Amino acid sequence: MIKICVDCMGSDNGSKATVGGIKNFLKTHKDVQIIAVGRKEELTELESYSQVEIVDVPDVVPMTVSPLEVMRARKSSMYQAINLTKENGYDAVVSAGSTGGFLSCATMRLKLVEGIQRAALVTPFPTKSGNPLTILDIGANAETTPEQLKQFALMGRIYSQNVFKKEEPRLYLLSNGAEEEKGSPEVKQAHKLLKESNFPGFKGNIEAREALDGDCDVIITGGFAGNIFLKACEGVAKMMQSMIKDAFKKNIFTMIGYLFANSGFKKMKEIMNYKSYGGAMLLGVNGVVVKAHGNSDDYSFGCALDLAYRMAQSNLVNLLRDGVKENTPIEEKGE
Amino acid sequence: MIKICVDCMGSDNGSKATVGGIKNFLKTHKDVQIIAVGRKEELTELESYSQVEIVDVPDVVPMTVSPLEVMRARKSSMYQAINLTKENGYDAVVSAGSTGGFLSCATMRLKLVEGIQRAALVTPFPTKSGNPLTILDIGANAETTPEQLKQFALMGRIYSQNVFKKEEPRLYLLSNGAEEEKGSPEVKQAHKLLKESNFPGFKGNIEAREALDGDCDVIITGGFAGNIFLKACEGVAKMMQSMIKDAFKKNIFTMIGYLFANSGFKKMKEIMNYKSYGGAMLLGVNGVVVKAHGNSDDYSFGCALDLAYRMAQSNLVNLLRDGVKENTPIEEKGE
Repeated sequence: MIKICVDCMGSDNGSKATVGGIKNFLKTHKDVQIIAVGRKEELTELESYSQVEIVDVPDVVPMTVSPLEVMRARKSSMYQAINLTKENGYDAVVSAGSTGGFLSCATMRLKLVEGIQRAALVTPFPTKSGNPLTILDIGANAETTPEQLKQFALMGRIYSQNVFKKEEPRLYLLSNGAEEEKGSPEVKQAHKLLKESNFPGFKGNIEAREALDGDCDVIITGGFAGNIFLKACEGVAKMMQSMIKDAFKKNIFTMIGYLFANSGFKKMKEIMNYKSYGGAMLLGVNGVVVKAHGNSDDYSFGCALDLAYRMAQSNLVNLLRDGVKENTPIEEKGE
Repeated sequence: MIKICVDCMGSDNGSKATVGGIKNFLKTHKDVQIIAVGRKEELTELESYSQVEIVDVPDVVPMTVSPLEVMRARKSSMYQAINLTKENGYDAVVSAGSTGGFLSCATMRLKLVEGIQRAALVTPFPTKSGNPLTILDIGANAETTPEQLKQFALMGRIYSQNVFKKEEPRLYLLSNGAEEEKGSPEVKQAHKLLKESNFPGFKGNIEAREALDGDCDVIITGGFAGNIFLKACEGVAKMMQSMIKDAFKKNIFTMIGYLFANSGFKKMKEIMNYKSYGGAMLLGVNGVVVKAHGNSDDYSFGCALDLAYRMAQSNLVNLLRDGVKENTPIEEKGE
C-alpha cells in the first residue's frame, strides 16, 4: 500500500483543486492511502473516503513564502505534510504551494541523498517523436556549479533508465550552440567534466530548438535556464493552442472544417497538454517529493498524485541512492 | 539611397540563399544599393542588376570560426563585408555566417557606441495579441553582468520607442519567477539596479510563460538564457506546426476539414513564421549589423535584408548614440 501525504492548501486555487484532484485520483487507484493535510472544514468532501485520513492543520503559507519561513511555520499544511512524511515514513509528499518554500523545506527535513550536493526538479516532456525526454533541473536552483551539473547528469541517467527503461540514455547539455566551446562558463566547464570522465551516453551540447525533436533522452541544464526553457515551451504551446481555437472559430466554413478535422487534432492535444504531466519530482532527496503546478486544477493535481504514486512504486529513490554510491569515486566517498 | 553590404557566402546553404534573397529583396526596394561580397563565379546571377555591385573575394570562413580567426581572414567574404562597411561608410552589413565570428568581428571593426560595454542581439517576436515584443540579448553574450543588463534595458527602450513607436515601453527582466527575489545572481542584482534607478517603464520580473502574452514591450535577458528562450519558442512552434500538418493529413475527413478551415490558419501561419523575422540586429555598435539565420533560404534572407534596410532608414544607430549619451551620468562620462 502506497501512502501519499498531500498539502491540501497550497495551490493558487486553494483546497478546491487539491480535493478535486484527490477524488479524481482515487477513482483509479485502490491500493493507496492519502493523508490529506489542511483545514478540516475545507476538506469535508474527503471525509467519506475510507482511503483518506484527514490531518487538521490551521495555517497556510503564502505563495511568496521564504524557505526559512516554512521551517518556522510549524502549523502550516506545507510544513506538516513534509514533517509527517518524514516522521511516519510515508512514500511520497505532494504540494502545489510555493516552489521555493516546498523544495527547500523538503530538502532540509528529508535530507539529500548521500553524495548529492543539490536536488534538482525533473519532469518528463512531450517530444515530436513521442520519445519521452527527461530534463533537469527545471527550477530548483537559480545557480548551479559545473560539478552539480555533472551530478544532475548522473541523476538524469538513473531516472531515464528506471522510469523510461532506456538502457543507454543519450544525454546532452542544454546550451546556446551545439559546438563544444559554446555556453555559459558553468556549462562549458560541465561539458569538460562530462567529456573527460567519459560519462556514459554523453553526446555534447544541444540547442533548445533541437531539444524536442526526440533524438535525446536526457537534457542537463542549470535551474535558471531550465525553468526558462520549460516555461517558454509551455507559453508557445498555450499561445498556439489558443490560435488553433481561433482559427477554427473564424467563420462558418472553418467551423465546418473543425467538425471534419477534429479527430486529427486529438493526438496533438494529448501530447501538448502540459497539465497531464501534473508536476515535477525533486530528485536527490530521501523521498518522493512532487511539486504540482501552482495553478493546478482537479485534473492536473490528480496527475501530480499519479506521478507521485508511480515514483513511489518504482522504488526510484533507492535506485538513485545505489546509483550515486556506485558512481562516486572512492576518494570522494571518504570526504 | 541606402547602401547594404552583404556577406554572400556565409549561410548553411551557401550563396544560393543569399543570391536568391537579394533578388527577392530588390523586387520591392528600388532606392537601395547592394554591395555583394563573395566569390564572383557564384554571384553571376546578380551581374545584370544595376543596383548590385559585386566585390570578388576568394575565401569563406567556416561556421565554427572563432572571432580572432575572422579578424585574420582578411580575404574572407565575412571580414571584407564588415571592413568595406567601415571603410566606405555603408549603411548596413548583413551575414548569415557564424554568429560568434560575425558579431565579434563587427564589434571590433565598427566599435561599440560610446558608453556601451557590450552589444546585444535584438529581435522582434510574435505575441498572442500582436503587440510587437523586443527581446535582448538573444545570444551575443554567453555571460552578462548586472550593469550590462541595465544597459540592455536602455538599448531595448530606445529600440522599442523608435522601431515600434512605443512612447513608454513596459520593460521586464526575464526570470524564473515573477517575484523580486527570484533569479540568477546577475538577474537579482540587475533587478535591484533597475529598481533603485527608477528606470522608466521597469515593471519587474516576468516568467517565460507570460512573455508572449503581449502585455510587455521589452524583455531583458542575458544572452545565454535569451538564446534558450528564443530557440525553445522556435522549437515548439516548429513541432506544433508539423503536428497541425499531420492532424490535417490523418484521413480523408481531416483533409476535407483542411479545405474548410485553411483560411482560419493563415493568420497563425503568418504570426508564427519565424523566417519572416529574417534575422536579429546587433544593438550597441556603430552601424546597422544584421545577423541572418544560418539556415536562411531565399525568403528569410530577403527578410533579413529588409530588416537591415528599415533599421538603416530609421536612423536607429544615431538615436541610440544620443539616448545613451543622455542617460549616462556625468561622472561616468568623465571616465
